[in-house]
Amino acid sequence: MSFWDKLKWTEDGLIPAIVQDVHTGRVLMMAWMNRASLEKTVETRRTWFWSRSRKKFWMKGESSGHLQVVKDITFDCDGDVLLLQVEQTGAACHEGFRSCFFRSIDSEGVGWVETDVRLETPEAIYGIK
Amino acid sequence: MSFWDKLKWTEDGLIPAIVQDVHTGRVLMMAWMNRASLEKTVETRRTWFWSRSRKKFWMKGESSGHLQVVKDITFDCDGDVLLLQVEQTGAACHEGFRSCFFRSIDSEGVGWVETDVRLETPEAIYGIK
Repeated sequence: MSFWDKLKWTEDGLIPAIVQDVHTGRVLMMAWMNRASLEKTVETRRTWFWSRSRKKFWMKGESSGHLQVVKDITFDCDGDVLLLQVEQTGAACHEGFRSCFFRSIDSEGVGWVETDVRLETPEAIYGIK
Repeated sequence: MSFWDKLKWTEDGLIPAIVQDVHTGRVLMMAWMNRASLEKTVETRRTWFWSRSRKKFWMKGESSGHLQVVKDITFDCDGDVLLLQVEQTGAACHEGFRSCFFRSIDSEGVGWVETDVRLETPEAIYGIK
């Protein structure tokens, strides 16, 4: 039996993929994969996703240079979520933060606080003027 | 502005919530929240989810006793994923493993290996005979 038989995909043929920094344990981002992007991820050891908004296959870092080298791929008990351990180059977040999770809900449960510093501006990452 | 205004929900009114062990950094599980379950989570500091299959509001640990005490709630850059830091009692996984992610894809990218030991049997957790 292949692990592929254990996986469950949404009606759109997708599965959520959580990406964690293998060295720090920090959760960096979550994005969606389809079967082709997971196959490509397994084969190349880089992360490939499916963009639901752009309806496009993309490799993390293809425009930013902020690649993820895949060290481990796990799947959960129900087979409907993936968790990848990666070596992250630079900022995982397109807003220039190390992790996309850089804001915490405040103690009143109403507002939020920024809990991290920006490494780079999006303009610097993507060469936007 | 409230953090509630930053969140984006699926068409079904849901948002994925990744749960991480605040002490070890281990990703324990991912489940879905609706607005009511997130409100209840913020208010009680326990994790509440929405079961898509059972169409039911549930508190993690209500039948297993394996509660999650919420220490931090963060949301990602796009506002469409939550990440919670928790203190986990016992096994997070209903199969009796500490984390739901206890299987890795093998180096050939075909099979898988179990990477963790079972803490308890589901029978012991749920009192099933």
